[in-house]
Amino acid sequence: MDMQTALADLSSFLGQRLSRSKSDLDLHGASESYFPLSPPDAVAWPESTEEVARIVAACARHRVPVVGWGTGTSLEGQAQAFSGGVVVDFSRMNRVLEVAQADMVARVQPGVTREALNEELRATGLMFPVDPGANASLGGMASTRASGTTAVRYGTMRDNVLGLEVVTARGEVIRTGTAARKSAAGYDLTALFVGSEGTLGLITELTLRLHGQPEAISAAVCAFESVAGAVQTVIDTIQCGIPMARIELLDEDSVRAVNAYAKMNLPEKPHLLLEFHGSAAGVAEQAEAFGAIAADHHGSGFDWATRPEARRALWTMRHNAYYAVLASRPGARAIVTDICVPISRLAEAIEETRADLAQSGVHGPILGHVGDGNFHASLLVRDGDAEELSRAKAAAERMVERSLAMGGTATGEHGIGVGKLGYMAREHGPGWAMMGTIKAALDPDNIMNPGKMVPPRN
Amino acid sequence: MDMQTALADLSSFLGQRLSRSKSDLDLHGASESYFPLSPPDAVAWPESTEEVARIVAACARHRVPVVGWGTGTSLEGQAQAFSGGVVVDFSRMNRVLEVAQADMVARVQPGVTREALNEELRATGLMFPVDPGANASLGGMASTRASGTTAVRYGTMRDNVLGLEVVTARGEVIRTGTAARKSAAGYDLTALFVGSEGTLGLITELTLRLHGQPEAISAAVCAFESVAGAVQTVIDTIQCGIPMARIELLDEDSVRAVNAYAKMNLPEKPHLLLEFHGSAAGVAEQAEAFGAIAADHHGSGFDWATRPEARRALWTMRHNAYYAVLASRPGARAIVTDICVPISRLAEAIEETRADLAQSGVHGPILGHVGDGNFHASLLVRDGDAEELSRAKAAAERMVERSLAMGGTATGEHGIGVGKLGYMAREHGPGWAMMGTIKAALDPDNIMNPGKMVPPRN
Repeated sequence: MDMQTALADLSSFLGQRLSRSKSDLDLHGASESYFPLSPPDAVAWPESTEEVARIVAACARHRVPVVGWGTGTSLEGQAQAFSGGVVVDFSRMNRVLEVAQADMVARVQPGVTREALNEELRATGLMFPVDPGANASLGGMASTRASGTTAVRYGTMRDNVLGLEVVTARGEVIRTGTAARKSAAGYDLTALFVGSEGTLGLITELTLRLHGQPEAISAAVCAFESVAGAVQTVIDTIQCGIPMARIELLDEDSVRAVNAYAKMNLPEKPHLLLEFHGSAAGVAEQAEAFGAIAADHHGSGFDWATRPEARRALWTMRHNAYYAVLASRPGARAIVTDICVPISRLAEAIEETRADLAQSGVHGPILGHVGDGNFHASLLVRDGDAEELSRAKAAAERMVERSLAMGGTATGEHGIGVGKLGYMAREHGPGWAMMGTIKAALDPDNIMNPGKMVPPRN
Repeated sequence: MDMQTALADLSSFLGQRLSRSKSDLDLHGASESYFPLSPPDAVAWPESTEEVARIVAACARHRVPVVGWGTGTSLEGQAQAFSGGVVVDFSRMNRVLEVAQADMVARVQPGVTREALNEELRATGLMFPVDPGANASLGGMASTRASGTTAVRYGTMRDNVLGLEVVTARGEVIRTGTAARKSAAGYDLTALFVGSEGTLGLITELTLRLHGQPEAISAAVCAFESVAGAVQTVIDTIQCGIPMARIELLDEDSVRAVNAYAKMNLPEKPHLLLEFHGSAAGVAEQAEAFGAIAADHHGSGFDWATRPEARRALWTMRHNAYYAVLASRPGARAIVTDICVPISRLAEAIEETRADLAQSGVHGPILGHVGDGNFHASLLVRDGDAEELSRAKAAAERMVERSLAMGGTATGEHGIGVGKLGYMAREHGPGWAMMGTIKAALDPDNIMNPGKMVPPRN
């Protein structure tokens, strides 16, 4: 690795858009999660695909690690340069390049955030529904295969990225996919890059699938006596084929945190938050059918919000729930778990997790995208308390073991980064080695986000 | 390559389930399309994953090509062993291993056909909706990334395969994906194998996403004065967010062929065939909204079929349309084109194709999954007429050029095989070389369906 020459190369065409200032490095070495600060050697702010290609080519020549950076909101340390190198910050590549209304497709640069895109789409009657909570960049969302509250209806980034432009590890520019709705032409490189967390290349453009803004939206909050009652309501609703746009669980600890943080006064019981999208008649029909199922499971205190402001308040509350949980214990950081199990095992997975956390003395409010079988316990750990950290990590590990034993995954949506790397062998068995083979073939010098995703090289 | 020793190896554990009889070889060297007979050296009928692994390991030791075979209904010669070797026929691996009703997931062996699976599901209230017309095997459908009439609503095989068991080119067994609805854990190996046409490994088990059987179904046929009117109806319907379960175009030539073949008497005009799935009220609402849009575009002669028999007759007619077209010219074979364009360009793509075919003197009735922007012209060629074949191939090539220029793909659903291999470089540019790099890494001896999908090795 010849860092100095590489950085001199980069400076020659990036000028002020290559920084080695301590504040910039620290800012790009931090994450929202519990990982230690990991300042890179430099931060680059490219403004075009060509510049990204030149950056990667220069780093390839000098064997310098390259790590992509969107908004820094990933939760597993994906964008942290633990091996040093150059962080490529996409915030200046933030243009919506095209909105093809008739095709319901948008082409965007990777630094466009999901909120910025939806703002741009507002007048078109279209929307980009994937919503991980944070106002993340779309490049980052694709790289981590993000999903969130609306995946139960609209799918994850896997389902909503039609094509990509990517700078490969050699600094070459390729395009994957097309603007057509489907294709059977060759290996699905789009899907290979979605979720690859920058370990195979850097995404420089995305072609996204858009959806129509629903004619009518109805949202609701509903309290339950037990988590099991709430989860069984979700299962029955799915079985009945009622198309939910969102269905979220907050356990009583989460409700308590949210009440304190957002000055709400929900009863301290498990809650479901939900939303239906459709025609006015369709939404009414769905709401009624859901109400009957919830009543069967002792759901109560329905509050239907069809007004936009009331709905916005509801989802802002949900989106801030992670911060509410963090705030419930000042000075704490969180290990955010993210298991996803077959829906038939969901109640069991949540109950066992709660019992385990209680027994381990770990405080971990639970939030879940329960329509997908995905939930998070945010395990609160006093900053610097090694004993508590190790206890929480052990509980997180047991959650994953439980998920895998139930046919689930270690991560429904947060991805691998460094936080979940230790589970890859267990989840994938010999498939993990195959991922390593692919990585070695496409990035033989291991410069793209090294140390992540695949088995260490011998 | 040491074929004799390899076949002796295989015989030692397959016994009678390895055949070199001429009839078996010919049967596994033919296709439904225009490609020449290509008998393999042997056909194997494994009964378990372990046997598939032993077959591939033996072939790997002796550098013998391995080609998977489902029902032989692929249209681009995917399952033909043009380089010889062993065809692995999955017809004896045809068990539905598990139907997890609450999870809406099925685990099946690759030889299960889509109709057999749906027969098994009938009493559960669930269904597997992907429907390419032919009663193909699910392993074959995954390998070619099949879709068909229902993709507009339920997606393609890409969207409906949650996980796979695969025998790799080294004869190792790996599992991809989980039974959970989503995962962000690592490279999407499932998506890499779906559509890889047996060039990276053999699928030995599939975990499939099931859907609820709709409460109500309504189907219709509607005639239009022009293809443009029919296509504009489709575009407007999509824009209005009316969720169609199927929407198919037959141009007047196709209608003529279908009338003759199925003894129908539809007016000889372009037709849309469509189907809505939902609640009784929802379906009625959708049908009404569609009717208003169709009337705007001079749609006429609506025939709503809510009775199952009438619906079945309608879709049987559609499924047999390819055979009807073939029968319209006895002694002809078909080059089946399969372009898919952004929906905004669909009318233009169809019109230009029709004009081109008329000018070239090629008879090519058009059928289309128009909700996806995907359509087929079946170019009829007298068997053995080299001049006509070359004229038809040139017209097919111009269709692809047109599709790529419009942002579309060379193949919406039939895949590459040998028929579309010549378009890969144009569609993918340097991305095609990346596919070759992946293939070389995962199948270094090039034994898995060699000569297909990727650039020839130097």
